[in-house]
Amino acid sequence: MTTTNRIFNFSAGPAVLPLEVLEEARENLLAMPGVGMSILEISHRSKPFEEIIAGAEGDIRRLAGIPDGYHVLFLQGGASLQFSMVPMNILPTEGSADYIVTGSWSQKAVKEARRVGGVRIAASTEADNFTRVPTQNELTLDPDAAYVHYTTNNTIFGTEFGYVPEVGNVPLVADTSSDMFGGPVDVSKFALIYAGAQKNLAPAGVTLVIIRDDLLRRTPSSLPTMLQYPIHAENDSLYNTPPVFAIYVMRLVLQWLLKQGGLEAIGQGNARKADKLYNEIDRTGFYRAHAQPGSRSRMNVTFRLPTEALEKTFAKEATSAGLDGLKGHRSVGGIRASIYNAFPENGIGGLVQFMQQFEKRNG
Amino acid sequence: MTTTNRIFNFSAGPAVLPLEVLEEARENLLAMPGVGMSILEISHRSKPFEEIIAGAEGDIRRLAGIPDGYHVLFLQGGASLQFSMVPMNILPTEGSADYIVTGSWSQKAVKEARRVGGVRIAASTEADNFTRVPTQNELTLDPDAAYVHYTTNNTIFGTEFGYVPEVGNVPLVADTSSDMFGGPVDVSKFALIYAGAQKNLAPAGVTLVIIRDDLLRRTPSSLPTMLQYPIHAENDSLYNTPPVFAIYVMRLVLQWLLKQGGLEAIGQGNARKADKLYNEIDRTGFYRAHAQPGSRSRMNVTFRLPTEALEKTFAKEATSAGLDGLKGHRSVGGIRASIYNAFPENGIGGLVQFMQQFEKRNG
Repeated sequence: MTTTNRIFNFSAGPAVLPLEVLEEARENLLAMPGVGMSILEISHRSKPFEEIIAGAEGDIRRLAGIPDGYHVLFLQGGASLQFSMVPMNILPTEGSADYIVTGSWSQKAVKEARRVGGVRIAASTEADNFTRVPTQNELTLDPDAAYVHYTTNNTIFGTEFGYVPEVGNVPLVADTSSDMFGGPVDVSKFALIYAGAQKNLAPAGVTLVIIRDDLLRRTPSSLPTMLQYPIHAENDSLYNTPPVFAIYVMRLVLQWLLKQGGLEAIGQGNARKADKLYNEIDRTGFYRAHAQPGSRSRMNVTFRLPTEALEKTFAKEATSAGLDGLKGHRSVGGIRASIYNAFPENGIGGLVQFMQQFEKRNG
Repeated sequence: MTTTNRIFNFSAGPAVLPLEVLEEARENLLAMPGVGMSILEISHRSKPFEEIIAGAEGDIRRLAGIPDGYHVLFLQGGASLQFSMVPMNILPTEGSADYIVTGSWSQKAVKEARRVGGVRIAASTEADNFTRVPTQNELTLDPDAAYVHYTTNNTIFGTEFGYVPEVGNVPLVADTSSDMFGGPVDVSKFALIYAGAQKNLAPAGVTLVIIRDDLLRRTPSSLPTMLQYPIHAENDSLYNTPPVFAIYVMRLVLQWLLKQGGLEAIGQGNARKADKLYNEIDRTGFYRAHAQPGSRSRMNVTFRLPTEALEKTFAKEATSAGLDGLKGHRSVGGIRASIYNAFPENGIGGLVQFMQQFEKRNG
């Protein structure tokens, strides 16, 4: 198996992983050196796994410069389960939480929170078809809210917050599933960060949660044990069997991020990649970006062509040219190029070249 | 990497997988032929994954001869989350469920069910230090119970039900995490079967649920969406991003089971392996089985030595001899040899030989 068999994977998630990471995982798939069993077979209570999970936590703390007073958890169930775990743990039944609505995933988060307690919509850009995120001035915040929840990057619509909302003393909760570690993150501004890992961090099957310790005291003890953040915090994410392999691959990704120079360097690379693509989209008017300037995502670049028929042809011909996964989400249509951390810069060059040729043939 | 680097892995779970399965997974780790991306990178909405998950379901139906009227689901969170999902979905708040208590995992299941509704203990062998499972005659069943729950195999204590409890018209629910597909299973006797996959089916990170369709109508719509069985059933386990890789490896294991001749043949092999080990344990009295005859597990063989000091030495020397993971669970002590489906017969020979030599040196 050579690496030349690999195509460019623009999929929104699960998504591309660094080639070095895949190569190292492959090395450990039959027998880890000095252990004599596959990474798929080791006990979650074994020394080798203790090193992996402690190492992953250490790398996360180092990459993001996480201050004292936060727990780092490795859970299951993705952001979808976090939509429920967040309010079940930190929204009192008689309380109210502020939600900023910027797309389908925020809407799902709202739906689950409403099962638990009161929800106020602090801002919504639905009237604009989610082509942008709100500005700080548009947020109508309740100073007594249990927390403020928002989605940092909207995979489907291709928008991203370019700023961290100022919310005063109210705990800020963020779903960062699709741009976690896509650039520097100031964890001290957040009370809780969660991310389904399958976009920017790992294969599907593990969810990263970073939670400030004071929030751990809110959890009602009546909750199902597996849904209690404090249980996972007290047990270092080993209350039950964790997804060993997904955590192992996440660790490899984290080490790769460190080797790239950390989040500052990663963020610069992502900005370069996204700029190149948006410049091409804006160049002639043949392509039209879905997201408004100022709200454009560095991770998911969404754009339209003159007709739906042309969009179909574009996606199809791109696949044949080795550029896969470009079909947009059905709720937006058009084209979506997901270009997460591990997406290689030369793949952007390939797409830009393809766009230019396609425009020549069809413009 | 050669296969000779591999040792014998007696770990209770995550546990040994078939070498063929590991080899095939390794082949797909950089780029799946004809797909051009790693199995870790493909979208859960892609054709290749559709084939994998539909194939896994088909193999499970074929292996177990599942009759019509059941859904097969691939979830996350392990048996630990099922301890809550089962009562949340099928135990009415004013209702009562019967639980058979045969070890630590049943006790945890009881604890979670009590958060939801009424729980009656239909039998418990705690007074016998869980050295056996109850007989049918010992079960005091409530004919109006919402369901009867039991644990088919008790990993920690090394006991296993040799029969399926007769429960009349009450739905029977089984946690089969540690002996699922260790032999034939008559699914028609069960209303709900669940199994964390990391012992006998797959690497950690996926949970198999087989549920009879009539139970799907019991779920209160107020539950968190991710905890509703009907949501996962309606969406073919794709309501959210499933653990793609763990399901893929499970599929490989299922195909390996079929290639071995199916569950009848697998069950015979497991009986041969377990008999060989129990015969050696019973041979001289130096070793003493923890589980009583009639309740002995084919999957987890637990036994004691004359002293705790000897048990420590045994485990340590065995590890040096390439027989790893034999230390018993702290709540039972002694030695535990977990010999799941994928554990090779020659590994049993190796352990028996080691036991005989150890007895000679220390007996």
